[in-house]
Amino acid sequence: MSISLTTLIYGIGLAGVAVNAAAGVLEAGRKPFDLFGMVVVALAAALGGGSLRDMLLDRTVFWVADQSYLLAAMLAGLATFALVRVVRLPPRLFLLPDAVGLALFTVSGTQAALALDAPWLVASLMGVITGVFGGIVRDVLCNEVPLVFTGELYATASWLGALLLVALHAAGVSAGWSALAAAALVLTIRLLAIRFRWRLPVFTARL
Amino acid sequence: MSISLTTLIYGIGLAGVAVNAAAGVLEAGRKPFDLFGMVVVALAAALGGGSLRDMLLDRTVFWVADQSYLLAAMLAGLATFALVRVVRLPPRLFLLPDAVGLALFTVSGTQAALALDAPWLVASLMGVITGVFGGIVRDVLCNEVPLVFTGELYATASWLGALLLVALHAAGVSAGWSALAAAALVLTIRLLAIRFRWRLPVFTARL
Amino acid sequence: MSISLTTLIYGIGLAGVAVNAAAGVLEAGRKPFDLFGMVVVALAAALGGGSLRDMLLDRTVFWVADQSYLLAAMLAGLATFALVRVVRLPPRLFLLPDAVGLALFTVSGTQAALALDAPWLVASLMGVITGVFGGIVRDVLCNEVPLVFTGELYATASWLGALLLVALHAAGVSAGWSALAAAALVLTIRLLAIRFRWRLPVFTARL
Repeated sequence: MSISLTTLIYGIGLAGVAVNAAAGVLEAGRKPFDLFGMVVVALAAALGGGSLRDMLLDRTVFWVADQSYLLAAMLAGLATFALVRVVRLPPRLFLLPDAVGLALFTVSGTQAALALDAPWLVASLMGVITGVFGGIVRDVLCNEVPLVFTGELYATASWLGALLLVALHAAGVSAGWSALAAAALVLTIRLLAIRFRWRLPVFTARL
Repeated sequence: MSISLTTLIYGIGLAGVAVNAAAGVLEAGRKPFDLFGMVVVALAAALGGGSLRDMLLDRTVFWVADQSYLLAAMLAGLATFALVRVVRLPPRLFLLPDAVGLALFTVSGTQAALALDAPWLVASLMGVITGVFGGIVRDVLCNEVPLVFTGELYATASWLGALLLVALHAAGVSAGWSALAAAALVLTIRLLAIRFRWRLPVFTARL
Repeated sequence: MSISLTTLIYGIGLAGVAVNAAAGVLEAGRKPFDLFGMVVVALAAALGGGSLRDMLLDRTVFWVADQSYLLAAMLAGLATFALVRVVRLPPRLFLLPDAVGLALFTVSGTQAALALDAPWLVASLMGVITGVFGGIVRDVLCNEVPLVFTGELYATASWLGALLLVALHAAGVSAGWSALAAAALVLTIRLLAIRFRWRLPVFTARL
């Protein structure tokens, strides 16, 4: 990858963190949280997935190594906090950047695990964890059943993209093209799922 | 220990993971989760305790080092998902393998900590964490008060077994016999507690 | 710092752990938890913040390295359990030692991060995590919205103290004096906030 592509990916990664922080603020806004509670939920939503991935893989946690991510999450959270007090944001405004964030987190999580020679199932799961764990923590902190367990295809899109990336990696395809293909797959499935309300079957045990 | 005993313990360890995953699916079945949500709860229930133990002890996380555990948890979760859609499983069916899993997780967690020369109280707590933390995460994800805090002796059985293992280790008893004795103690207490409804006193503060 | 000051700080650190464990027991007392559930909540409240800090910074977890903290948390939890069964404790009794604990945890968390050359924002956040994460875990285990998100200035006091410590560290002030000033700031803000009911604005999104 050329320098400019690396820079682009870094920038989009920061944008993914910022978008997830903003989504965290909107979620926290349904509860009587104070400013700090809102910031915590934003940080947990934006950084939770990558933090768990890095602790599980015993890597240096990404935002400890580079606090730009922390700054991006905080500024995005505070900006959203300020914005929603003056204008009414359409909730669907965040769906596109959120889907982009999911695609990028999935790719970065899977690649981080592959770089450490993790086996294929572990590597794909690390992509999913990076993509969706932040949202799960956000909902647990807000004392709600995690949305990611019940809505349109979200984690499934992440997992299919992660598995594609692992397969392309095994087939010897370059990191850049693998990442591009996997991110495109995640994005496509997620956007189609939103458009056509694709859901997984809901599970209810006969107990 | 002979090779065959090691193989037996490994196999029972995989079975413990599978049983906990199945129990996670049954718990998640009371909520309107989709297939992915169910898989996440199953993985958290089966792998959560050992993951926290390994992160606290700074060991390589067991299912990252050997993805057989991850596969066992997923397959058991999916099989349970398929099964409960066609037959009505008696809830008590899982109590025996679950008790076996508790005994094995307790022993493996305590031994892992002792192998790193952890002090006695830490080592015994690692056994308890390995045995019960998965169930706590499962219930938090399902937005319920953890069952392990309120039911028949569960964590207490785990703790007594872990303390016995630490004591036998300090007395110089071999790893194999210590493990056997501790596992038998956990299993006995747990099964007697289920049979005779032994519970710890419930605590209510006078506030 | 002289030996006696180090000993004093160590002792106050143990006291902070004990106070947080006692607060965890009081919180768990509102739920029908058994003795074990109560102990788990006490341990999570007392050790959760420092554990997360150490896992994020890839340090040896403090209570694994020195089980005195674990003992202090357990004994304090059990003593509180026994005490509240016979006497009615005024809830405000714990506010002063809890504020002292917040100040000490904030300072120790920030210093641990600075010792590893963490960047300023990360270091200050580690102080806050050490100070408040235990209380968040305690409330999540009790299936409640974290109190720290809604009450009088708590995390804000921690953060301002952590930022002062980082600034004094950057200015070359000695570790002892920096710690003293930061702890005093946290304590002062927290006690004034309790006395005068200072709160952050509560956030409610216009969705």
